[in-house]
Amino acid sequence: MSTAPDPLSLPAVRATRKGEQTRSAIVAVACELAARDGLEGLTIGALAERMKMSKSGVFAHFGSREDLQIAVLRAYEARFVDQVLRPALEAPRGLARLQAMMAQWLDRTAEDAATSCIWISGAAEYDDRPGPVREVLVSMVRSWQRELTRAIQQAIDTGELAANVQPQDLVFDLYGVVLVLHHDARLMNSHDALPRARRAFKRLLAAAARSPSST
Amino acid sequence: MSTAPDPLSLPAVRATRKGEQTRSAIVAVACELAARDGLEGLTIGALAERMKMSKSGVFAHFGSREDLQIAVLRAYEARFVDQVLRPALEAPRGLARLQAMMAQWLDRTAEDAATSCIWISGAAEYDDRPGPVREVLVSMVRSWQRELTRAIQQAIDTGELAANVQPQDLVFDLYGVVLVLHHDARLMNSHDALPRARRAFKRLLAAAARSPSST
Repeated sequence: MSTAPDPLSLPAVRATRKGEQTRSAIVAVACELAARDGLEGLTIGALAERMKMSKSGVFAHFGSREDLQIAVLRAYEARFVDQVLRPALEAPRGLARLQAMMAQWLDRTAEDAATSCIWISGAAEYDDRPGPVREVLVSMVRSWQRELTRAIQQAIDTGELAANVQPQDLVFDLYGVVLVLHHDARLMNSHDALPRARRAFKRLLAAAARSPSST
Repeated sequence: MSTAPDPLSLPAVRATRKGEQTRSAIVAVACELAARDGLEGLTIGALAERMKMSKSGVFAHFGSREDLQIAVLRAYEARFVDQVLRPALEAPRGLARLQAMMAQWLDRTAEDAATSCIWISGAAEYDDRPGPVREVLVSMVRSWQRELTRAIQQAIDTGELAANVQPQDLVFDLYGVVLVLHHDARLMNSHDALPRARRAFKRLLAAAARSPSST
């Protein structure tokens, strides 16, 4: 015990804090670049230039480009949880919560369309590129799909959605609405995409509130 | 008139034909490469290597990489029309035709998932990359959306879909089903994606056959 360094030794704490701040600043800029150029378009070189740092300075904070890409994904997920999931959890369980999740998700996707949702653009980049970045991305999408599944199940439990709704089928449908919103807003420059997505979501909920045929 | 070259002069015809054959062979290989690496991943270098040609030999057939990418898109569209649209046009106007279009489209998307639908992967590549390739891609998607709109309108005219269905809303919904099928089959490796997409399509049609609320 007596040989252990004092964990509160000020210079060490200060150095760690400074290191964390620099790391966060790098990740923030990397998120911007990834939203514009894709995760695969992210290079340590471009990042170093934007940060006015040396490449080795950037490398000191991230062991590799993959680690940096994963840090960007984690930062994206943290923001997504803050902006989409957490506010929705304040709504009561059941339909109200599912509606809150979807409303935020649709709004955010439409806003993101100016740059890009890196989960959606990442899907196209990594769907045939095995490796740790893809694994992290897939686990994040799965985790969000689980949240949606849970919200749907709760709305079935409250009786607001029909008992024979298959939660995973409805998650599939909802995901489709978000993907086509992203597609139409970005590629097709459609100004109707967001209101159309909201109507599609309402129709899906209305059908799931009745007794949907699961054929 | 007497100075015009004889258009049937055999060597010239033979040379043109040979040129066309080589061009077609290059486009066929380029389609494979683009399905694997994306249109942006397509390089004259990789193509020349696969064709055992010089780069300048490939360039002789395409003025630029963009021309090559556009040729790949046109070849893709031609195959899509052959496999999806043309067989469906043999079904009677109305619901049967719409169902045939969707059945082929879903099957093809699921098959394509082994490689990639270059319209869908292209959407992610070009949605923020202005230029002629994007314009060609957008016009192809629009043209396919018009075909779907027409088929839906005909099914409304036959009374098989409700009169208050908004064709463009339904096209949006159908596109969402195909995009999430592609996403789940490719990124999430979901084996349920195709049957789930078929069920989603049936539910959408069933809802549109009743009187859908267009709120």
